[in-house]
Amino acid sequence: MAADRQVSTHIAYDELVALLRQVFLRHGCSETVASLLAQNMAGAERDGAHSHGIFRIKGNLASLDTGWVDGKAMPMLEDVAPGMQRADGRNGFSLPVLELAREPLMAKARANGIAMLSVRKAHHFSAVWPDIEPFAREGFLALAMINSMASVVPHGGHRKVYGTNPFGFAAPREGSDPLVFDQASSAMANGDVQIARREGRQLPPGTGVDRHGNPTTDPNAILDGGALLPFGGHKGSSIAMMMEIMGAALAGGDYSFEMDWSAYPGAATPHGGQTYILIDPQRGAVNSFADRLELLIAEIHDAGQSRLPGDRRYATRRKSLANGIAVDEAALEEIRALAVA
Amino acid sequence: MAADRQVSTHIAYDELVALLRQVFLRHGCSETVASLLAQNMAGAERDGAHSHGIFRIKGNLASLDTGWVDGKAMPMLEDVAPGMQRADGRNGFSLPVLELAREPLMAKARANGIAMLSVRKAHHFSAVWPDIEPFAREGFLALAMINSMASVVPHGGHRKVYGTNPFGFAAPREGSDPLVFDQASSAMANGDVQIARREGRQLPPGTGVDRHGNPTTDPNAILDGGALLPFGGHKGSSIAMMMEIMGAALAGGDYSFEMDWSAYPGAATPHGGQTYILIDPQRGAVNSFADRLELLIAEIHDAGQSRLPGDRRYATRRKSLANGIAVDEAALEEIRALAVA
Repeated sequence: MAADRQVSTHIAYDELVALLRQVFLRHGCSETVASLLAQNMAGAERDGAHSHGIFRIKGNLASLDTGWVDGKAMPMLEDVAPGMQRADGRNGFSLPVLELAREPLMAKARANGIAMLSVRKAHHFSAVWPDIEPFAREGFLALAMINSMASVVPHGGHRKVYGTNPFGFAAPREGSDPLVFDQASSAMANGDVQIARREGRQLPPGTGVDRHGNPTTDPNAILDGGALLPFGGHKGSSIAMMMEIMGAALAGGDYSFEMDWSAYPGAATPHGGQTYILIDPQRGAVNSFADRLELLIAEIHDAGQSRLPGDRRYATRRKSLANGIAVDEAALEEIRALAVA
Repeated sequence: MAADRQVSTHIAYDELVALLRQVFLRHGCSETVASLLAQNMAGAERDGAHSHGIFRIKGNLASLDTGWVDGKAMPMLEDVAPGMQRADGRNGFSLPVLELAREPLMAKARANGIAMLSVRKAHHFSAVWPDIEPFAREGFLALAMINSMASVVPHGGHRKVYGTNPFGFAAPREGSDPLVFDQASSAMANGDVQIARREGRQLPPGTGVDRHGNPTTDPNAILDGGALLPFGGHKGSSIAMMMEIMGAALAGGDYSFEMDWSAYPGAATPHGGQTYILIDPQRGAVNSFADRLELLIAEIHDAGQSRLPGDRRYATRRKSLANGIAVDEAALEEIRALAVA
């Protein structure tokens, strides 16, 4: 998730949010959307999730400036069944959709034990953990299944079909930050390949193929007409396929291979679909979910896995909140310029 | 899934079911349980899923003979929320639990859009696809999350904690067999390692470690004090962890590492927990799920992945139903002997 980078200054979280908010306001976002985008992006930067932090600002702005995404869209939420909500992002970002759906979705999960939200026509360009971590903080298990834009070849295939298609899972813990994983179905996240290209680094073998379908470790070859490989061979490929089905076929979004933004130069926000599932672990519980989860975590640590998914993010978050967020001076100057441009 | 084996005779599906039923009746199963086990095991053999077929009969019988599993157990089903059922297998097999819960679970999914069944104290020794394929045939999307018995090291760890923990997913298709995957969270299924040992075959690199935590391709070293590796590195390890949380912590089953059958020699049926989630894709649909899924499948084929998960099973099934199930003559004779023993 995190990439090593040149760090030369620190900025307080609130200050970074305020700056980013100005930038998004200046590029056609409503007050609400600008605030949500700014908090999300500053939050990623705060947690050391650089591939979803300020690194993505240009992609977001290009999407806004070209009209590929509507920064003022008001999402629509439909109650389609006692345990099911459907939302239409109306070509806006996914964050305001989740903001609108969060409380009613939790109410449904409390009432029914399990509930689902599916989202279509919403641009999801952020990490998945900020979507689901808040649900776990409210005591819910949360699953997120999202498709994006074609960049991954199916196992045994020769051209890209799937997106990097993240799969997210969050579980509540008592007295600790939630246990959260958010993992691309590709061998590597697209953002990390972009960072490697920017920094001139080669990638590990097994990451992707070039435009001719041959294995490569060159980020340029992957990004310029090549493709990523799924993680874990045919099993990861099946997970990627499942994200397409749950994101697009079920939620009504576009498939990753259907996205065509060729008329919107620089646009980078995919509008596939998203399915979120919430479960109330207290409902009908035969034991304490919290106690049982702590027992598992203790056993995992005892077996030698010192770091759980999310641990590094939380550690960086604490450091950032205490000392400010470590950011590249040049990148910060660029944002300051954009905020007053 | 399927392993190459010596084939020397054919048997009709119904005949194999009847034979296996006799065997299970003679080993203390009720009529209902004997029928369900026989159909399940013959079904796996029919579909070429040999690692879950008659190969497992000895493990089942040892579990029954030693009293590790109760072949006459009557499961209990509780309605705990509008979208949620919980079941107690009462130390019996998982198959009668699903048989009992199937119709009410589908009714809940139809009424609420999404519904969940969690199962505890039930021995799950069968494949996952037979659990979920029938739901997809009734028009539902189905997810299955199951933990088993410790045989997999967490990523970066040095001893086993997780089970092979299968993750199953089924989607309905119009005019075709459902799209179903059923994949172990380990680099290889335990049954396939057992078959490799029996046949004296080495395994691919990356499959497992020996008792000292060193990589090995020897099935004996993996099975005798060693462990399997998760598929796909830390991402597969997270999936394995999720199956423990959904199977054990949520459903109330034992964790894979808690299972202790040392007092039951030869017992082989793990009684972790199982969580099933059903979704009605027609509910609030904004497009035809069936049409959309066919479009994705066409695209996957077009990109060069010729075989989808489940395709090989369905092909073998058709062949078996036409010509009889190809089985090893010696194995069949053993079953015939057990049926009249």
